[in-house]
Amino acid sequence: MKPAASTGQRPKPPASAVVGMVGGGQLARMTAQAAISLGIELRILSTDPCDSALTAGAEHVLGSPQDLNALKDFAAGCDVVTYDHEHVPFHHQQALYDHGVRLAPPPHAALFGQDKLHARRTMKAQHCPVPDFVHARSHAEIGRFAADHGWPLVAKTSRGGYDGRGVWILHDSSQARHLLRKLSQGLLLEPKLDISTEIAVLVSRSPTGETKIYPAVETVQRDGMCREILAPAPISVELAAQARHLAIRLAAEIGAVGVIAVEMFHTADGLVINEVALRPHNSGHFTIEGAVTSQFEQHLRAVLGWPLGETTPTAPAVATVNVIGSATAIDPASRLPAALTVPGIHVHLYRKAPRPGRKLGHVTALGTTLPETLQRARHAAALLGGNPDE
Amino acid sequence: MKPAASTGQRPKPPASAVVGMVGGGQLARMTAQAAISLGIELRILSTDPCDSALTAGAEHVLGSPQDLNALKDFAAGCDVVTYDHEHVPFHHQQALYDHGVRLAPPPHAALFGQDKLHARRTMKAQHCPVPDFVHARSHAEIGRFAADHGWPLVAKTSRGGYDGRGVWILHDSSQARHLLRKLSQGLLLEPKLDISTEIAVLVSRSPTGETKIYPAVETVQRDGMCREILAPAPISVELAAQARHLAIRLAAEIGAVGVIAVEMFHTADGLVINEVALRPHNSGHFTIEGAVTSQFEQHLRAVLGWPLGETTPTAPAVATVNVIGSATAIDPASRLPAALTVPGIHVHLYRKAPRPGRKLGHVTALGTTLPETLQRARHAAALLGGNPDE
Repeated sequence: MKPAASTGQRPKPPASAVVGMVGGGQLARMTAQAAISLGIELRILSTDPCDSALTAGAEHVLGSPQDLNALKDFAAGCDVVTYDHEHVPFHHQQALYDHGVRLAPPPHAALFGQDKLHARRTMKAQHCPVPDFVHARSHAEIGRFAADHGWPLVAKTSRGGYDGRGVWILHDSSQARHLLRKLSQGLLLEPKLDISTEIAVLVSRSPTGETKIYPAVETVQRDGMCREILAPAPISVELAAQARHLAIRLAAEIGAVGVIAVEMFHTADGLVINEVALRPHNSGHFTIEGAVTSQFEQHLRAVLGWPLGETTPTAPAVATVNVIGSATAIDPASRLPAALTVPGIHVHLYRKAPRPGRKLGHVTALGTTLPETLQRARHAAALLGGNPDE
Repeated sequence: MKPAASTGQRPKPPASAVVGMVGGGQLARMTAQAAISLGIELRILSTDPCDSALTAGAEHVLGSPQDLNALKDFAAGCDVVTYDHEHVPFHHQQALYDHGVRLAPPPHAALFGQDKLHARRTMKAQHCPVPDFVHARSHAEIGRFAADHGWPLVAKTSRGGYDGRGVWILHDSSQARHLLRKLSQGLLLEPKLDISTEIAVLVSRSPTGETKIYPAVETVQRDGMCREILAPAPISVELAAQARHLAIRLAAEIGAVGVIAVEMFHTADGLVINEVALRPHNSGHFTIEGAVTSQFEQHLRAVLGWPLGETTPTAPAVATVNVIGSATAIDPASRLPAALTVPGIHVHLYRKAPRPGRKLGHVTALGTTLPETLQRARHAAALLGGNPDE
């Protein structure tokens, strides 16, 4: 063991690549874990010392993603800056980019994850299949769209929604009128589609254009929040190939750098793209144990411009079940020993304060068939107290 | 995103189990990674802020494992205290234990990893197969042992040796006399065995006696240092079963808590036990990707008295190759992008200052046959600059 340094100066470990990540949630937490293996220093910009990544010990700077000076100072020490969320204002991203900061994804690509209306319009212009939509700023516009598509309609805010927040089902024009009064910037309206399956495809893309794609997965939502991920998606080979083809094409057209998650609806009329996220994504948590390279390692490799890793699945069936805070706000950490009795499951807890409806962790199981594998992951997640009704 | 706390008080994340680990090397680093998944807080006692686990962001207290007061203060905040090395003096362990600190392994078990002579004597008394040995404190005793076994002999220090340090090959009595003059506490002497295979078996044991065992592996040494680990060991089913049986029996007889690695020699006369380590071990790094539960997660579960995880292999063949500092002291971090071109490999860098002969990282590959799998792991390790002769 080496003696402690006798000078007041803190000795330095060997140099390493430094990746900055704005935001310290569970995505940053799991990215920090992946960074340790590669000897990368992950540095987080966060407003809250209790954020999930910070309690995991990641290097951090306290500061707001809304504060351009804080962003500039933070970026100065990093080889590249990436994101755990979509809350860095576009004009700040643009200012950093103009200032010479290496951003992954670059601002014009990141905007796809920030602004649903921009994403829809661009995808439509690129002939990517998207639901019919309109940006309705007046009651007359809502009326015209309803006349074409019938009630109910789905209304979304163009920015800032997540986990079911920022999405409403409108059953008639009075509900629409009420919502429009609250949302001065207008509504992104779309028909309420008859969805047979929700599918997500994760793609990683490096600045050189190298691209690797993961198997298409089925995501199971409840209350607008992703509950379960089944990998591979139990869909036809043709549909999976079509979904993967769309995701790869979109990643290139957007100019994505890093991991991008493309969420799609399968309807009677075929596949339509719902949303894209330009960062590691809940639908990709299965890759930690269920693919040769996890989405978190892959994201780091992509944003640094390093060669990408293999995305081959490690088992015939992989199921991830989210642990969602229940009404009784049980801390899943208190139930961990019970959950660990379930054979062959991988528990990930985010050390977030338990609150109803909050993602507190996830459980992944690997197996030979999806039903048996899902059953084990569900059982462990239920024991963790997050899904008391299962 | 939550606002920063407005009071001067740092808000606290939800409570979690706290495991203390004395020592901040790469074993602590990889244990810290496993602790993040389970939401466990791992706290390190270390003398050096540049230690491998500390640069990974693990919570730490600076202090010496030789300082009883530092150990007591450190233990006060922990649910259980365990070790990344064998350098906590036995009488300090005993004092902590008497003070009511939960130690895993307990002192009488940890002594097996600290004192080779004690371990050999106890194993012999328990009728475990060990090499012939003597504790030689005089030239006459050396002479009698040499008369029985012939030169060369192997001499070891009873305490403090690792990675080939503290082990000598003695070719004649003058070499023995010279060494004896330097080592006042005497020599642990054994015949130089004709070893066909070195085998290691990892067992985890909880305070309740629950025991899980990993597949037997072959360890390939050079200059007394482990270079490669092949899992499962390419040996007969009978020999693997015998090695596993010995390891399980020993773990129970020692009263081990946590992970224990049992290193054995296969000779013409059968298996003999060489050494035991009562902590995660280099021979178990393959379990991070190559077993359902990694040795680091398993160690945490065992020391906390939680249910143990499955030890099933995740692939038919797993190979780990250590990245050892070369004479030119290349930093493997600088070679990482090149190494990542090798398909399907998992790189672990420890962020240790590169020095010749120092373990700086390891590479694990999974595959269907050992030769092909080993070839990939070797290739990546060579690209990392650690094994220029391969």
